[in-house]
Amino acid sequence: MTGALAVGIAGLGTVGAGVVRLLADHAALIEARAGRKVTVVAVSARDRARNRGVSLEGLRWYDDPVALAADTKVDVVVELIGGADGPAHDLVMAALAAGKPVVTANKALIAMRGSALGAIEGASIRFEAAVAGGIPVIKALREGLAGDRIAGFAGIFNGTCNYILSRMRAEKLDFATVLADAQAQGYAEADPSFDIDGIDTAHKLAILAAIAFGREVDFGAVHVEGIRGVSALDIAFAEELGYRIKLLGIARATDAGIETRVHPAMVPLAAPLARVDGVNNAVVIEGDPVGQIVLQGRGAGAGPTASAVVADLIDLARGRAAPMLGVAPQALARRAAVPMAAHRGAYFLRLMVVDQPGVIADVTAVLRDHGISLESMLQHGRSPGDAVAVVLVTHVTQEAAMAAAITRLAALESVQVPPALIRIETA
Amino acid sequence: MTGALAVGIAGLGTVGAGVVRLLADHAALIEARAGRKVTVVAVSARDRARNRGVSLEGLRWYDDPVALAADTKVDVVVELIGGADGPAHDLVMAALAAGKPVVTANKALIAMRGSALGAIEGASIRFEAAVAGGIPVIKALREGLAGDRIAGFAGIFNGTCNYILSRMRAEKLDFATVLADAQAQGYAEADPSFDIDGIDTAHKLAILAAIAFGREVDFGAVHVEGIRGVSALDIAFAEELGYRIKLLGIARATDAGIETRVHPAMVPLAAPLARVDGVNNAVVIEGDPVGQIVLQGRGAGAGPTASAVVADLIDLARGRAAPMLGVAPQALARRAAVPMAAHRGAYFLRLMVVDQPGVIADVTAVLRDHGISLESMLQHGRSPGDAVAVVLVTHVTQEAAMAAAITRLAALESVQVPPALIRIETA
Repeated sequence: MTGALAVGIAGLGTVGAGVVRLLADHAALIEARAGRKVTVVAVSARDRARNRGVSLEGLRWYDDPVALAADTKVDVVVELIGGADGPAHDLVMAALAAGKPVVTANKALIAMRGSALGAIEGASIRFEAAVAGGIPVIKALREGLAGDRIAGFAGIFNGTCNYILSRMRAEKLDFATVLADAQAQGYAEADPSFDIDGIDTAHKLAILAAIAFGREVDFGAVHVEGIRGVSALDIAFAEELGYRIKLLGIARATDAGIETRVHPAMVPLAAPLARVDGVNNAVVIEGDPVGQIVLQGRGAGAGPTASAVVADLIDLARGRAAPMLGVAPQALARRAAVPMAAHRGAYFLRLMVVDQPGVIADVTAVLRDHGISLESMLQHGRSPGDAVAVVLVTHVTQEAAMAAAITRLAALESVQVPPALIRIETA
Repeated sequence: MTGALAVGIAGLGTVGAGVVRLLADHAALIEARAGRKVTVVAVSARDRARNRGVSLEGLRWYDDPVALAADTKVDVVVELIGGADGPAHDLVMAALAAGKPVVTANKALIAMRGSALGAIEGASIRFEAAVAGGIPVIKALREGLAGDRIAGFAGIFNGTCNYILSRMRAEKLDFATVLADAQAQGYAEADPSFDIDGIDTAHKLAILAAIAFGREVDFGAVHVEGIRGVSALDIAFAEELGYRIKLLGIARATDAGIETRVHPAMVPLAAPLARVDGVNNAVVIEGDPVGQIVLQGRGAGAGPTASAVVADLIDLARGRAAPMLGVAPQALARRAAVPMAAHRGAYFLRLMVVDQPGVIADVTAVLRDHGISLESMLQHGRSPGDAVAVVLVTHVTQEAAMAAAITRLAALESVQVPPALIRIETA
């Protein structure tokens, strides 16, 4: 048994304090699992005086995180500052330059700078906490399914969105009402756009896709739509049709390359992701030869995130090495990103139309012109003169055809508001 | 990048052939993930002439698996023979004595001889394939949740039992009918007792419990009941009460020690395990601070099992080391096994009683005498003179009290057949 692994932690918010607490509270258990002690020796944060509910006694304090990385007594740097640039990036670069491994929960950093960081000679960066909190999904893909060819995966990666969609459905409320309440309760940020516009999900998707397919992190290639446009009406229609609406991050290997997309999706009730509610995360992985694997758990919060950070530290303490993206930089595959226009899938389409003769004929003619065939059609509450909802569920078709059809449908005089479109997934 | 990892495989059934095929078919992908080639160089099986659908050309053949372990060109031995004793055990001992790591899918061997094997100085044994097929649950517990204190876990670990119970429910058939059909279709063995009597589940439970709690493998301490006694009637009652009946392997840390048990259980419909049907496996892990983690996938078959074996080989190729049970032998905790009589839980109890005045008073008096309180009672189809089913659901009570009460209930003149008891779980 070698000496203790000396840890320096930068960023002492709820996660940072959680890591300090976990390493102290489970010290004996962690020593047994790691084969040596794992001990915090130095910390860095903005406000030294703030009470964080954990003892920082005996730990060296750095106002500047870069100075923490230079501490010769620090073996490994834990970056919990956040953000793709600025202090977090400076700290990670300083640690790597000093030859020190880095453990981080920073999804923006890995999504935006992951490939550049991974290309640094000898760089050791671990980021299990960056995706799906305490669910060991990065380890599962990189190591547990290392012999598998991953066909694709789909997941719920943002607890805020899932909480909002779950409550909209359960309580039949509209988006704005639930968002305001989620903000009041602390389940959503004051500026929620990062979560509800799908950016956070896209960061996580880009990271997992890189590992699943052994290629560069390509955040720019992700097609991103958030949940602002999901209406209580469409949630009710989904229910009627046997679906749940979830914000999914999806990656698929196709003949043309890798498709990565984030958008609200209709998921059949019997599918594994349909019943994942509230702040939970889950991911469904399709591998050959393993088949379908489902992983589920809490995707955020101090406890799950600290669990993942400490697991990464224990791997380092045990000397369990892995290239950042599962394969060496020179072994990364060059696989094209497939544009969204080339996506093929089934679609839920809702139109608000004036209830007058010939409307359905006009609508179906447009779809026919674009080679789109219908699986089913649904119409409720005919009240002459008012706009009524017409729901169309298509067979599998191409996104480009669907987009062209929608442009024409939106231009029809009888169609009152922009059509609502939600993709149908089978995960 | 070092030279190829040379693999010797003993046992060329469907899993062994699957491993040979996977290493060949995914050679480039595996080389990238492993950082070096992983190549089969030698094999051993009983019948050299048998067509296994894979090419064995260029591989050294051994009739005797122990001779395979002695092959100086073999770096790692894959044991896929099966059985706790005999050739499998001889092979593993020979490989370890030669200082070679072993990868095995042999749950009986690890459950029965795991602690002795783990105590061998320098022994490296990997067995992800022994539990839940392709689901990387051993890696998740040993590494992914290494910072967590595991409170317990519950899982569906036997596909045959889950298939039988799923079909009994869906098609309202009795046990014997479904078992016969499962045997005809190859989902159950000609001698099914190993599966349906819970032994296979108990093997897997004993292995996972050792890793979860960092203690010796203690197969002997597992309380084991199978599914022969599960009736179509009780499945129907479960449905009515909002439960599904599953054969679970459950381990819990209590103040008194570790409780390990295998038995049919009533699981509420909203619980993660309730909707895991067919040949799937799943496990729900409760950790501090991670919370609840659910892992699900196919638990058996050549593909999932080969996936797990190859993942273990890639870990070895990368030099990712871990003690067999997650902690060094000298760091294993000495935690008492809690006897089943000390278990506390809620119970479903079905009695077939003569429908005559005073019966319910007699029954409830017995329960009262043993301090058992009722949550609900259900009775159907009163037809004077015939035996009718009376279902009682208890509040949490102690197994010992329940057992004593059942002995007295069975002795009541009005109780026609032995009472049926199924424990209620919340996973």
